[in-house]
Amino acid sequence: MISGKDVFVPLDVPQESRNTYVENYLLATKNSGKLMLFAGDQKIEHLNDDFYGEGIPLEDNDPEHMFKIASKATIGIFASQLGMIARYGMDYRNVPYLIKLNSKSHLVKVTQKDPKSTSWFGVSQIEEFRKNSGLKIVGIGYTIYLGSEFESDMLSEAAKYIYEAHRCGMLSVIWIYPRGKAVPDEKDPHLIAGAAGTAATLGTDFVKVNAPKKEGVNSAEALKEATQTAGRTKVICAGGSSTDALKFLQGLYDQIHIGGASGNATGRNIHQKPLDEAIRFCNAISALTIENKSVEDALKIYKG
Amino acid sequence: MISGKDVFVPLDVPQESRNTYVENYLLATKNSGKLMLFAGDQKIEHLNDDFYGEGIPLEDNDPEHMFKIASKATIGIFASQLGMIARYGMDYRNVPYLIKLNSKSHLVKVTQKDPKSTSWFGVSQIEEFRKNSGLKIVGIGYTIYLGSEFESDMLSEAAKYIYEAHRCGMLSVIWIYPRGKAVPDEKDPHLIAGAAGTAATLGTDFVKVNAPKKEGVNSAEALKEATQTAGRTKVICAGGSSTDALKFLQGLYDQIHIGGASGNATGRNIHQKPLDEAIRFCNAISALTIENKSVEDALKIYKG
Amino acid sequence: MISGKDVFVPLDVPQESRNTYVENYLLATKNSGKLMLFAGDQKIEHLNDDFYGEGIPLEDNDPEHMFKIASKATIGIFASQLGMIARYGMDYRNVPYLIKLNSKSHLVKVTQKDPKSTSWFGVSQIEEFRKNSGLKIVGIGYTIYLGSEFESDMLSEAAKYIYEAHRCGMLSVIWIYPRGKAVPDEKDPHLIAGAAGTAATLGTDFVKVNAPKKEGVNSAEALKEATQTAGRTKVICAGGSSTDALKFLQGLYDQIHIGGASGNATGRNIHQKPLDEAIRFCNAISALTIENKSVEDALKIYKG
Amino acid sequence: MISGKDVFVPLDVPQESRNTYVENYLLATKNSGKLMLFAGDQKIEHLNDDFYGEGIPLEDNDPEHMFKIASKATIGIFASQLGMIARYGMDYRNVPYLIKLNSKSHLVKVTQKDPKSTSWFGVSQIEEFRKNSGLKIVGIGYTIYLGSEFESDMLSEAAKYIYEAHRCGMLSVIWIYPRGKAVPDEKDPHLIAGAAGTAATLGTDFVKVNAPKKEGVNSAEALKEATQTAGRTKVICAGGSSTDALKFLQGLYDQIHIGGASGNATGRNIHQKPLDEAIRFCNAISALTIENKSVEDALKIYKG
Amino acid sequence: MISGKDVFVPLDVPQESRNTYVENYLLATKNSGKLMLFAGDQKIEHLNDDFYGEGIPLEDNDPEHMFKIASKATIGIFASQLGMIARYGMDYRNVPYLIKLNSKSHLVKVTQKDPKSTSWFGVSQIEEFRKNSGLKIVGIGYTIYLGSEFESDMLSEAAKYIYEAHRCGMLSVIWIYPRGKAVPDEKDPHLIAGAAGTAATLGTDFVKVNAPKKEGVNSAEALKEATQTAGRTKVICAGGSSTDALKFLQGLYDQIHIGGASGNATGRNIHQKPLDEAIRFCNAISALTIENKSVEDALKIYKG
Repeated sequence: MISGKDVFVPLDVPQESRNTYVENYLLATKNSGKLMLFAGDQKIEHLNDDFYGEGIPLEDNDPEHMFKIASKATIGIFASQLGMIARYGMDYRNVPYLIKLNSKSHLVKVTQKDPKSTSWFGVSQIEEFRKNSGLKIVGIGYTIYLGSEFESDMLSEAAKYIYEAHRCGMLSVIWIYPRGKAVPDEKDPHLIAGAAGTAATLGTDFVKVNAPKKEGVNSAEALKEATQTAGRTKVICAGGSSTDALKFLQGLYDQIHIGGASGNATGRNIHQKPLDEAIRFCNAISALTIENKSVEDALKIYKG
Repeated sequence: MISGKDVFVPLDVPQESRNTYVENYLLATKNSGKLMLFAGDQKIEHLNDDFYGEGIPLEDNDPEHMFKIASKATIGIFASQLGMIARYGMDYRNVPYLIKLNSKSHLVKVTQKDPKSTSWFGVSQIEEFRKNSGLKIVGIGYTIYLGSEFESDMLSEAAKYIYEAHRCGMLSVIWIYPRGKAVPDEKDPHLIAGAAGTAATLGTDFVKVNAPKKEGVNSAEALKEATQTAGRTKVICAGGSSTDALKFLQGLYDQIHIGGASGNATGRNIHQKPLDEAIRFCNAISALTIENKSVEDALKIYKG
Repeated sequence: MISGKDVFVPLDVPQESRNTYVENYLLATKNSGKLMLFAGDQKIEHLNDDFYGEGIPLEDNDPEHMFKIASKATIGIFASQLGMIARYGMDYRNVPYLIKLNSKSHLVKVTQKDPKSTSWFGVSQIEEFRKNSGLKIVGIGYTIYLGSEFESDMLSEAAKYIYEAHRCGMLSVIWIYPRGKAVPDEKDPHLIAGAAGTAATLGTDFVKVNAPKKEGVNSAEALKEATQTAGRTKVICAGGSSTDALKFLQGLYDQIHIGGASGNATGRNIHQKPLDEAIRFCNAISALTIENKSVEDALKIYKG
Repeated sequence: MISGKDVFVPLDVPQESRNTYVENYLLATKNSGKLMLFAGDQKIEHLNDDFYGEGIPLEDNDPEHMFKIASKATIGIFASQLGMIARYGMDYRNVPYLIKLNSKSHLVKVTQKDPKSTSWFGVSQIEEFRKNSGLKIVGIGYTIYLGSEFESDMLSEAAKYIYEAHRCGMLSVIWIYPRGKAVPDEKDPHLIAGAAGTAATLGTDFVKVNAPKKEGVNSAEALKEATQTAGRTKVICAGGSSTDALKFLQGLYDQIHIGGASGNATGRNIHQKPLDEAIRFCNAISALTIENKSVEDALKIYKG
Repeated sequence: MISGKDVFVPLDVPQESRNTYVENYLLATKNSGKLMLFAGDQKIEHLNDDFYGEGIPLEDNDPEHMFKIASKATIGIFASQLGMIARYGMDYRNVPYLIKLNSKSHLVKVTQKDPKSTSWFGVSQIEEFRKNSGLKIVGIGYTIYLGSEFESDMLSEAAKYIYEAHRCGMLSVIWIYPRGKAVPDEKDPHLIAGAAGTAATLGTDFVKVNAPKKEGVNSAEALKEATQTAGRTKVICAGGSSTDALKFLQGLYDQIHIGGASGNATGRNIHQKPLDEAIRFCNAISALTIENKSVEDALKIYKG
């Protein structure tokens, strides 16, 4: 458990916004310094692939499914788009929200054109929305495709938005994925580390990277290079594509305890379950991330 | 029949604009919560193809034809460009208008270049025009070509304009069509659902999609995936390309009663008829959409 | 002869600018409602091809030649670029001017790159120049290449400038030409009509199109589709490429009396004549356009 | 010799800036109405090719060489970039400066990509710099590559900057060169005339074109078409590439007395000489341009 | 040793900012007029290649390593990104910082697309951050890829930022590298000189170029052309890629004493050493640069 005086406040947070920043930080990490981010931005990023189809319960096709989970389970922050939050937030006021500023569909493939995702809003609009809505909006999110031909557009936007978020006491989370014709291996550990280091130069509070993957190398071990090079920027990642609960939780645990990660960002593995199961799985992840529980204890929570 | 207290108001509508939003909503849906949108933006979208040629009455070549229909028939809103409305609106003040913010011609094909349509105006100009003109302008419209290489330009504009429209109490309608070299099948139900979900992340009030089409699947059934995933964003679509009145009305009815649609957007099927017939057909569609009438009753209205 | 109360004022002209708009309209049309536009923007559009060479009198190479004609002949408005007008206007204060906001050279052909022409000024600068110069600047002009890959840039600019011109009581004239790799036949009557309809959606007061041309179809007859679909936006065009005075004047007459045109835009056919002859030809065109004279009467004026 | 009342003031110079404009004009032309422009912007346009190498005195590699010449010789204006002037101007306060707003290197050839040169500053920054520095900054310069695929970007910038320069009483000089894949012969007299005419539509005070060149045609004779079509915009050009002093001066003389030029823009032919010789050559050019001296008299000045 | 009155202040530094500029200059050069720049911007420019791998001590993978060096060694300025400085600066307040305004990764190669690097911040944000953070931020840095197809974007940004930095009394350092498909030999001495001259036209205080390299030519000798043509803009460069300390220091010494350089920019050669060794090497470079020591003396400092 940490308290306000333990919170690291970067220098681009001005004096008058330090308290807000500290409050947002404690809220987002549930006084743990670790982040459990429930990712709910895929309605456009993956269109309807993650929400409808074989093996996905029908209730996941209703956007409210994610809000119910976010509201009833233990989570750090729920990340989604402003428009979606504006239509459900009034019924889920207890949820700490993070607003993704940019999003794109996955229709245009890298072989056709390098990825580009531009912002839908600036920070001033988020700030205004926060005041008008009365919601607990603790920060902003932004996705960068490093190595894309349009990389510089996204780096410029991200840098400005992190700076502006800090200026008004909000947190920032950068999703950074090496992607484009120039990137043959998106999950190479050294490249993932480069991406994490890039996020550190941008001064973000948290950076979400994909878990590194290399033939013959343990992924959590491989993550160390990234968490070290990111320095005071904290790294989070997903527990891998496995849908086996034990493997998934063990993956997260190793990322934290071996790889030096400071939390995780999980989406599909949570919302592609019926509500009750989703809540329990969420709680399991949070216990492991925030309360520093063992994999066994977490699994027990999931199994109810 | 719904009243003001039944109107769902999203959180990006600030306190001071809630009454305006509710009034616009009730006006646009004629207190039904369902939208009958008379689409009159094709003078540029399809150039003169929809207004002049075999099987089209000569009077349809005069833009005033559409204003006459909009004024004399029962409709929810009439969607057109600001310039057109500025030249006819003074004589048709009873019509509730929706202003399309972007439009393009169909000359450049996808094989030549992916579609891009940028805004002609921002919301501040629409707001100013509304005050200066005294017209009943209830909202703004915007078209997105999802999957186009220029998708991100349109997503960014759409998100901002929806937010700004809501800020001053106006409604938003998003036309969203998957289109571009990356899109082999524009009417695939799963893709249409993805488009509807995208519109939901943008927080629009209504989204207009094409009716899904898949070999061996009922279109209205196939629409369900889209109306569910769109959640609190309401889906409207056209009744298909059929020009047979019964089939057309049955199509609309099924979209609503089977597919979960909240109305429709119809253009050519209305204005490509002589004035009197057009009015009756409009009224038939409205009866079915707004007054919850049966296909038979609607057909009687059309037949006069 | 029309008076102020006969002038149609669009709704995007706010109350405080209505008188200015009416005055500009009456001045530009010489109280006739018909527009004789003397086009003097080719110094860049055609570089020096129209002003120097075989069959062109040497005096046409001096820009002042056009100002002399505009000042001494009967014309509606003289259209040129701000820079040119700023250097001659002080000596030709009686001329009603229209300022072209965009212009390009003809060097880059469509086979190399689709046409794009961006604005040199916004309306606020024209308004400022009007006040500072004391000239009779009655409106703004803008050229759109419909079907160009850059169509949306030009549509967006045009829409904004028409709106802003109206806001301060100025008229707008849109030159619209279908052009680009996607356009095989620029003069197809149906396509010309589509272009005129597009201008109507932009809400311009006047639109200048090329005279339609189709094997076996009378051009003036073919123009009807365009003038009808443009509705309350008035169509003007040039009398064709013929340099025979009688044919030219007959062409204009037919455009008005058969095709429904509301005037014409003529450049080369006027200024490529010695001053005295140019004035007489100008007066002939104006007699036919503004004073509703017959071709014979107009020809007499030309012949002096 | 001309005085203030002889100075032509364009209408885009507002009343309150007329005196400043007149003073700048008299200063730049040394009360002659003719312009001797010493061009010192090549450090980027030609990189170090013009300043270092065989046949170039070593002192020319020091940027101060040009300032010394500009200060000690008789010149109209010295054209260079703001940054350069900001580092030497304090020691050369007697020099009238013209600031080039855009510049590019010559590395990317037309075969690779059409030329594009965008502005480094707007006029407001030049105006601010003029006040802060106390230097005699009489105007702004801008280069346009006519016929480039990016022509419209440069035309738009140029038009705005000329307008804004005039608004605060500064002069404008446009360098205009037909260049790009669409331009097979950059020095064709008719095309040079088209470029000069384009500059006239932009309303610039002076336009610098390359001397026309055509097999079997006298260059000074060929220049006439350009100086006539430019009308009240004055044309200046360089004396050709010849490095023979007599030929060079005779070239300038003929441009003025046969071709109708109003001065010249000379760079390399001046600064690629040792200081003392450069000053004498400068003075020779100025005597011929400003004082209307004969070639023989000018040559005597050069020879000391 | 120089004092305030010896500091050259360019004319774009307004009167009210002269003292600030002089203080920044003296601080950055430690009253020597020579600049020892410790480059710490590679976390994105080279991703993690410079910080992790064979021959690099593990501690270099922690960003704090560079801050420790910058704080404990004698340096002129430490150059890094704002975000990084915002997370470590509070613990290293004695360091004079220079903020790089633009940065890009090295993933996209020139064969795929010419390099483009756009700014993350404007000067106003740096100025605001300086005030809010209380750090000693003495200036801004910017990288230009001369000869890139996007050269003009970077030249425009650089010119504006130098001007604005000077306006508020900050120094500017331009990194300029000829790079792109049009550049076959990035290290050609004449081209490097052209790049240095370009930086001079931009008016920057310091320009960082790569050390020239030409078969059969001494690099320090070859640098002369660049330092001369840059005039009052001071040139710094790295000591070459050699990792042999003696060779490296001799290289720097020759650049200064033969080539006319005014300092150096060194990164990898410093931080790829364990802390204690890095400090000593840093001090050796500074002794040579700032205190005008011999290579032997500098080497002794390095060897402790």
